Amino acid sequence: MSLTLYNTLTREITPFTPIESGKVGIYLCGATVQAPPHIGHIRSGINFDILRRWLIASGYCVTFIRNVTDIDDKILHNAIHEEMPWWALAQKYERVFTAAYAELNVLPPTYEPRATGHITQMVELIARLIERGKAYAVANGDVYLDVRALDEYLTLSGQKIDDLQSSPDTDELSLSLKKNPQDFALWKSAKPGEPSWPTPWGNGRPGWHIECSAMAQAYLGEKFDIHAGGLDLIFPHHENEIAQSNGAGYPFAQRWLHNAWVTTAGEKMSKSLGNTLRIHELLKRVRGIELRWYLGSAHYRSMLEYSPEALDESAVNFRRIESFLKRAAAQLGKVPERAIADDFAKAMDDDLAVPAALAVISELVRDGNNAATAKDNALLDRKASEVRGALAVLGCDPWDTTWSSNEAGLSDVLSGLVKTLLDEREAARARKDFASADRIRDSITSLGLTIEDTPEGPRWSK
Amino acid sequence: MSLTLYNTLTREITPFTPIESGKVGIYLCGATVQAPPHIGHIRSGINFDILRRWLIASGYCVTFIRNVTDIDDKILHNAIHEEMPWWALAQKYERVFTAAYAELNVLPPTYEPRATGHITQMVELIARLIERGKAYAVANGDVYLDVRALDEYLTLSGQKIDDLQSSPDTDELSLSLKKNPQDFALWKSAKPGEPSWPTPWGNGRPGWHIECSAMAQAYLGEKFDIHAGGLDLIFPHHENEIAQSNGAGYPFAQRWLHNAWVTTAGEKMSKSLGNTLRIHELLKRVRGIELRWYLGSAHYRSMLEYSPEALDESAVNFRRIESFLKRAAAQLGKVPERAIADDFAKAMDDDLAVPAALAVISELVRDGNNAATAKDNALLDRKASEVRGALAVLGCDPWDTTWSSNEAGLSDVLSGLVKTLLDEREAARARKDFASADRIRDSITSLGLTIEDTPEGPRWSK
Repeated sequence: MSLTLYNTLTREITPFTPIESGKVGIYLCGATVQAPPHIGHIRSGINFDILRRWLIASGYCVTFIRNVTDIDDKILHNAIHEEMPWWALAQKYERVFTAAYAELNVLPPTYEPRATGHITQMVELIARLIERGKAYAVANGDVYLDVRALDEYLTLSGQKIDDLQSSPDTDELSLSLKKNPQDFALWKSAKPGEPSWPTPWGNGRPGWHIECSAMAQAYLGEKFDIHAGGLDLIFPHHENEIAQSNGAGYPFAQRWLHNAWVTTAGEKMSKSLGNTLRIHELLKRVRGIELRWYLGSAHYRSMLEYSPEALDESAVNFRRIESFLKRAAAQLGKVPERAIADDFAKAMDDDLAVPAALAVISELVRDGNNAATAKDNALLDRKASEVRGALAVLGCDPWDTTWSSNEAGLSDVLSGLVKTLLDEREAARARKDFASADRIRDSITSLGLTIEDTPEGPRWSK
Repeated sequence: MSLTLYNTLTREITPFTPIESGKVGIYLCGATVQAPPHIGHIRSGINFDILRRWLIASGYCVTFIRNVTDIDDKILHNAIHEEMPWWALAQKYERVFTAAYAELNVLPPTYEPRATGHITQMVELIARLIERGKAYAVANGDVYLDVRALDEYLTLSGQKIDDLQSSPDTDELSLSLKKNPQDFALWKSAKPGEPSWPTPWGNGRPGWHIECSAMAQAYLGEKFDIHAGGLDLIFPHHENEIAQSNGAGYPFAQRWLHNAWVTTAGEKMSKSLGNTLRIHELLKRVRGIELRWYLGSAHYRSMLEYSPEALDESAVNFRRIESFLKRAAAQLGKVPERAIADDFAKAMDDDLAVPAALAVISELVRDGNNAATAKDNALLDRKASEVRGALAVLGCDPWDTTWSSNEAGLSDVLSGLVKTLLDEREAARARKDFASADRIRDSITSLGLTIEDTPEGPRWSK
């Protein structure tokens, strides 16, 4: 069996065949860098990181493009609020996103283009659309896509043009300038005090959709394998990307994948709640590897209903798997290799059926623990390697350097070492060897760590 | 006394007065992301990070722009060699530079623009130069700056036009097209197989110099306080930036600062030697904070002659200061605050006289150690705070979270803990308490660390 994937365009799961044998090009709609990420943003990154890792494990060479939207109304608004230039705000949150992705072991994209860095490509695309009669400039310098001039429109969301009231980003002025209320802006004329770039139609800034058509083409070509993004982007963003690129005569993405949301009480995460579900808040509750495990554990097309209890339970489940791997490593005297179990591959090939893959991992762990107890090291080695290989595809290999080299990972090792030393100090005290007990204490404090004796036992901090 | 700085333009140290009171805009020529950085690259980053930190400590609000040159001949060449698209290579090494800067505690710039992201700004600037009669397009689509049409040229390096043979990047074809051999390319017409962007003069790519004129203006305005970079950039790069921006009628940078090189055997670091002096190689020899200390220890306008012995000696000196701070923290029962000693300020205000500042730190440490021995905690606190404050300006505060949260910092603590545990294991063996010895060993290995008994004693690794 080989990989099958859902396609939002056809609403079917079909075999995945790349345009060029052995290679896959993926464009993922990345962050609008207006504020720090919450888990809803990063879930999307993780879902498609799992796709990427599975493609790599299946032998493909993957070019992965994830853009940064660094100019839009909210960025301009927040920059005023935070009293800094809009570009400084965008840079600040681009860095916060990069750090969050890295902390959760999302592979860095092959290229991470910024919207503002691709004005010439957008202008070329808009000029071509105008030339082909699919777009038009109006008196004030706006440029609109004429949706009724397209051969097709709304194929991804399956809506009808006449059912649309008007393009969602429409104000009264633009409504008076547009041919059809459903036409959407490719380019917005400059407003006083706002950033702008020169074009043949006057100074202005890009509409929201044009950047992704231009950047996907710049890095993946006129026709590429997979376009991915969150469910909420199907309309208008992805419909309008298709309209722009097909309208210009380019085949564009051959397959569309959309991840579902993180929900709370059944709703898409609200902005106010999103604030409390920022990555750094949750990393106080669980380790990075556990948060990653949790966010990747649902099928990418299923909603993930967040609750602190669900997160804790998921972390406990993960620690069981991790304990097995550590037990195996201790018994085998080596870190297991990474291998892919047939059943795991079957699950992943079935539209990335992660829940089924997790069931396979549970079985492997059970069999592995039995083998460990029975001292069947050959079987233990095989099972442990298959568990580690599966975890690696999910981005949760405990021996991945991400976890050992970042603060959370090293802190974990560090905690373990301090705990062992504190146990030794207790043992020394118990055998009235106070010289040893003091020596251990001094060694720990000389490293800049603080030990406090509390009624619940000794506690340490940095 | 207030800050005085050297100005390459006038060859004098003069009082620094910002254009707008309380604010400083700095543009630093950053990396051409063609390969990993060696210490010569990062020294420049550290020198001007010290400038930035001193300005911040002096109460200024600093906007710091450091560009990424992500298109040039070497990037195109190396991309062919590494068998990847040029933009993927540029992204790869941009990330390596970012990591190296972060590891050595260089503050991230307010904005880090990429050259390829500013084509429209370059085209606007070139168009303006043509309009003003300072530049001209030729038959093949190249655009050149007419150096003889300028009011002034070569004011920074103090050369005469007639003494220049021809612009350094000139080939035979361009020589035949140019008005004067000294004219330099603002825009290069597209060559087959090379990336290009559209302009009124045809498709092509930027000359090397135009990007910095365009990006400095985009983020700092037509006139700004300080332009910085390596000594080797004075000619042609910075001369040509001045030619472009002044030629277009913009005042541009008011002051020019240039850092000297890291040399080996008196020579600018060669490419082959540079390979062995990569940041990651040197971080095997010393900790990040020690490497930062070493690279920042010479005056920014003095050559820093690298030798392993000099690096080791510098690290030993730093550890003496660090030991004093730890001793002070232990004796005071708290981490000292950050304060600025008058003599330290005086040294830094004198064109960032770091060697004089280091002499002040040595004195403070001596006085502080005497105070510690005399149990004069008030004096100890003051001295320790002044040492910590000085170290913070140099980017070497041991309590800066950079050092405690990155791998090197935590690894250091971790090594200390493992060593203590291994000592305890030896002690347990010596008293024939093999149960304890085994328990300690198991605790360490269960954390994913490996212990190997060697003739020189036990060794551990991750």
